[in-house]
Amino acid sequence: MRIYAGVDIGGTTIKVGVMSDKLDKITFATPHSADELIDKITDAIKELSSGELCGIGVGCPGAVDRRGVIDYMPNIDIFDLDIATLLSKRLNTVVCVTNDANAAALGECRRLGLSDAVMLTLGTGVGSGIVIDGKIFEGYCGKAAEIGHMIIEAGGRKCGCGLNGCFEAYASSSALIAQTKEAMKKNSHSLMWKLCSDINEVSGALAFDAERLGDETATFVIKEYVGFLSIGILNICNIFRPQAIIIGGGVSNQDENLIGRVRSECEKLNYGYKKAPHPLILRASLGDNAGLYGAIEFIKDKVEENI
Amino acid sequence: MRIYAGVDIGGTTIKVGVMSDKLDKITFATPHSADELIDKITDAIKELSSGELCGIGVGCPGAVDRRGVIDYMPNIDIFDLDIATLLSKRLNTVVCVTNDANAAALGECRRLGLSDAVMLTLGTGVGSGIVIDGKIFEGYCGKAAEIGHMIIEAGGRKCGCGLNGCFEAYASSSALIAQTKEAMKKNSHSLMWKLCSDINEVSGALAFDAERLGDETATFVIKEYVGFLSIGILNICNIFRPQAIIIGGGVSNQDENLIGRVRSECEKLNYGYKKAPHPLILRASLGDNAGLYGAIEFIKDKVEENI
Repeated sequence: MRIYAGVDIGGTTIKVGVMSDKLDKITFATPHSADELIDKITDAIKELSSGELCGIGVGCPGAVDRRGVIDYMPNIDIFDLDIATLLSKRLNTVVCVTNDANAAALGECRRLGLSDAVMLTLGTGVGSGIVIDGKIFEGYCGKAAEIGHMIIEAGGRKCGCGLNGCFEAYASSSALIAQTKEAMKKNSHSLMWKLCSDINEVSGALAFDAERLGDETATFVIKEYVGFLSIGILNICNIFRPQAIIIGGGVSNQDENLIGRVRSECEKLNYGYKKAPHPLILRASLGDNAGLYGAIEFIKDKVEENI
Repeated sequence: MRIYAGVDIGGTTIKVGVMSDKLDKITFATPHSADELIDKITDAIKELSSGELCGIGVGCPGAVDRRGVIDYMPNIDIFDLDIATLLSKRLNTVVCVTNDANAAALGECRRLGLSDAVMLTLGTGVGSGIVIDGKIFEGYCGKAAEIGHMIIEAGGRKCGCGLNGCFEAYASSSALIAQTKEAMKKNSHSLMWKLCSDINEVSGALAFDAERLGDETATFVIKEYVGFLSIGILNICNIFRPQAIIIGGGVSNQDENLIGRVRSECEKLNYGYKKAPHPLILRASLGDNAGLYGAIEFIKDKVEENI
């Protein structure tokens, strides 16, 4: 039986899986040395493979070049890792590497039966993947699809990348948490203090929870968050007009309470202009498995293209 | 001989051309009635065709749907024009329609030997066309590539589309002219008043001319203009990482005085992030013929794909 393996490297855990009738997977803590990382992935793939291993797809955080070399992975102190060559030698098969957000976008598209979509993962940062004509779009130079670093407010909030006004500084869960904390500090009567007395414990869900209880401060935070998120989504509409924009990551757990509002905001703004086609705005459906599932689909496509 | 015809519809003139050994073209004023527009294009193509007409490519301003129906054309009071069907019946050949900025982008790419580029036309608005893998990218829903309406300053300058903060409101020649006028009104000692005493006659070149003479007000206007233009270009880098970003339209006549500065600004901002690949930033090379040339290439591709 032909087997494709997928690897989804995260800041805290690595998932390795193979798809046969169902998805078999092994999860382990992310090692912080390159050797151990390669060893553990190799062992996991060997353990899972029960047929002819035809290829390995890898999704990893950070920037990957077109040869499969990972420049750096944020939160994992590993740099310039030629993971494609290393895994390929160890397991004697073809290895293709992409960004984890790209892999997740492909996974969601396959699951939802979409050929053209942009996926945003609202987490610590804003991950983004673009699928065009059923394939991950990586850009001519590679390293494309960094929609989190699209500037939406010139001279605006400081972003982790060093520039100002990036979408990520407004739409990530970290941004939502930072804004929630700031609003709490300014409003000592906010209900949010009742729900969370320790400001260091503030989550991305807090403002949503307090808003449901009628808290004005929380309502303002959420309104602003949805406004900025919608601006980024409108930009995606105007640039790509995809079939769908898929929203994943922690904040997407708010489901229609978030997605429905973004949709209304986009309606209000005519999806960019009057008579503009309306891409679907959907919640991601695969949760934590999107990247792994997408990594497997990615390598399967690559190998089958060349057969 | 197999002949392909191109049509480039502009707000003031229409160009019709066929490519044999060289580009033969006819230019006429844009009629403001649909019947006359179709008649005149038909006549011009008949006049130019001296072989088997295999298809017609049309580039038009405004929004076109995937069937080739033009929703509306700004500055020309013609709406819902099914130009593909009408021309096809009159000339008994296949007709494909795209936005004029898309056609120009394809034309420039073919001329420069590029497969993946984004072209910005800095004119009354900011037209944009995206070429991926040698083909115009129109988006799943059509009507994509509206980069002029990407919001770069949330809540910023009012745009003609009704929203605020669109790239077009900062990077078009109209925006440059508006900012130049505003700066002149605030600075009665600016040299710009010497170069142009009638504020209604201000052009996009005025601030560049005055800057060369050392005028501080003009220097500020240009610096701000280049800053915003570079933000939009950085966004394109982060989203597409194309081979090249091509800048056309009236303002691009400033040549390296503009393009070189944009390049420096992008260098300064690391093209979006450290170690990011650097797309080329180039001036358009075909001038007014880009759209016509691209429309011919567009239909040629479409027909040859189906042979």
